Amino acid sequence: MGIVFSDITVSADGFATGMNQREDAPFGDIDETWLHGWMFETADENRAEIDAIVDSGATIMGRNMFGPVRGEWDRPWTGWWGPDPPYHNAVFVLTHHPHEPIRMEGGTTFHFVTEGITAAFERARAEAGDRDISIAGGARTVNQFLAAGLLDELRLHVTPSILGAGERIFDGVPPQQLERVSVRAASLVTHITYRPVRGR
Amino acid sequence: MGIVFSDITVSADGFATGMNQREDAPFGDIDETWLHGWMFETADENRAEIDAIVDSGATIMGRNMFGPVRGEWDRPWTGWWGPDPPYHNAVFVLTHHPHEPIRMEGGTTFHFVTEGITAAFERARAEAGDRDISIAGGARTVNQFLAAGLLDELRLHVTPSILGAGERIFDGVPPQQLERVSVRAASLVTHITYRPVRGR
Repeated sequence: MGIVFSDITVSADGFATGMNQREDAPFGDIDETWLHGWMFETADENRAEIDAIVDSGATIMGRNMFGPVRGEWDRPWTGWWGPDPPYHNAVFVLTHHPHEPIRMEGGTTFHFVTEGITAAFERARAEAGDRDISIAGGARTVNQFLAAGLLDELRLHVTPSILGAGERIFDGVPPQQLERVSVRAASLVTHITYRPVRGR
Repeated sequence: MGIVFSDITVSADGFATGMNQREDAPFGDIDETWLHGWMFETADENRAEIDAIVDSGATIMGRNMFGPVRGEWDRPWTGWWGPDPPYHNAVFVLTHHPHEPIRMEGGTTFHFVTEGITAAFERARAEAGDRDISIAGGARTVNQFLAAGLLDELRLHVTPSILGAGERIFDGVPPQQLERVSVRAASLVTHITYRPVRGR
């Protein structure tokens, strides 16, 4: 059986987004290159890490990672990623508001789960088969999975910046020791992989 | 002229102490080995980083790093480090309450500065000559120097743990990009050195 992993890019102070996420600013009031410049400006140098992000049999994400629509689904929205999203598998979107599945090009289908993270996890597990499950974000969703003990591997991509506000990794996660599995320094980012230590 | 550096050990979520610092728990309500085990259990492996911490011509620290006494100096206290502290130079302690200098063995003298970080910085600069100045901690003091643009190099020692509460590095520091100077992974800690990018 596969593992449950999450890749998330954070500032040195742990923020994965700024404040005020909206349609014309998916990451809110920040210069997004401070966080994600490493993926665009130095893609070749980080090819292995980038490819691993979407190497899963199923994906789970929070509603804010899926889009800027809040409350009822009062207008069409099919994600930030255009007609062919990079997931190419079943993506389970956590929301309080039911929505029909949305089938995209390239094998991505967005399913909307209103029963919480455990229900999303079970559906993703059934879908993924022997492959891994990716918890795609945002930070709040990753923190929920960490707090619930459902995450096997957290791959932090730490960028040299201070953001000062926004959604923060580890917020609300119970104190615990982690195992640091690997560290790799690239020119614009430090890749650090942690695993929760089970049974504590 | 030397640089102004700070070494600080933090959890993966950025905390340098737990809550409720007190005399029998200098780092508050945490298992201190989660933070500082790397310095004691793997000292040989981290000899260069440990030696660099006290390789300065003068040192500045916050009052809580000096001791647990709060408010007026109502009882004798000469620091957490016994008769021969590891600094071997002039240590300027930031406080709102005046105190006579305390001369220890081995060349360490604690001076008490009531006029704020700039005054402490000027006295340390005069004392250090061509050598570096160390901002020894805690996190709140390091953050003040970072926010004031007075820190040249921040050496984070990141341990694989989630503490969830306490004094946090970067809190209150204005958003900015940093330069990541170096990364080294040791068995119990990840050493990451940042420099503020000037002129932004």
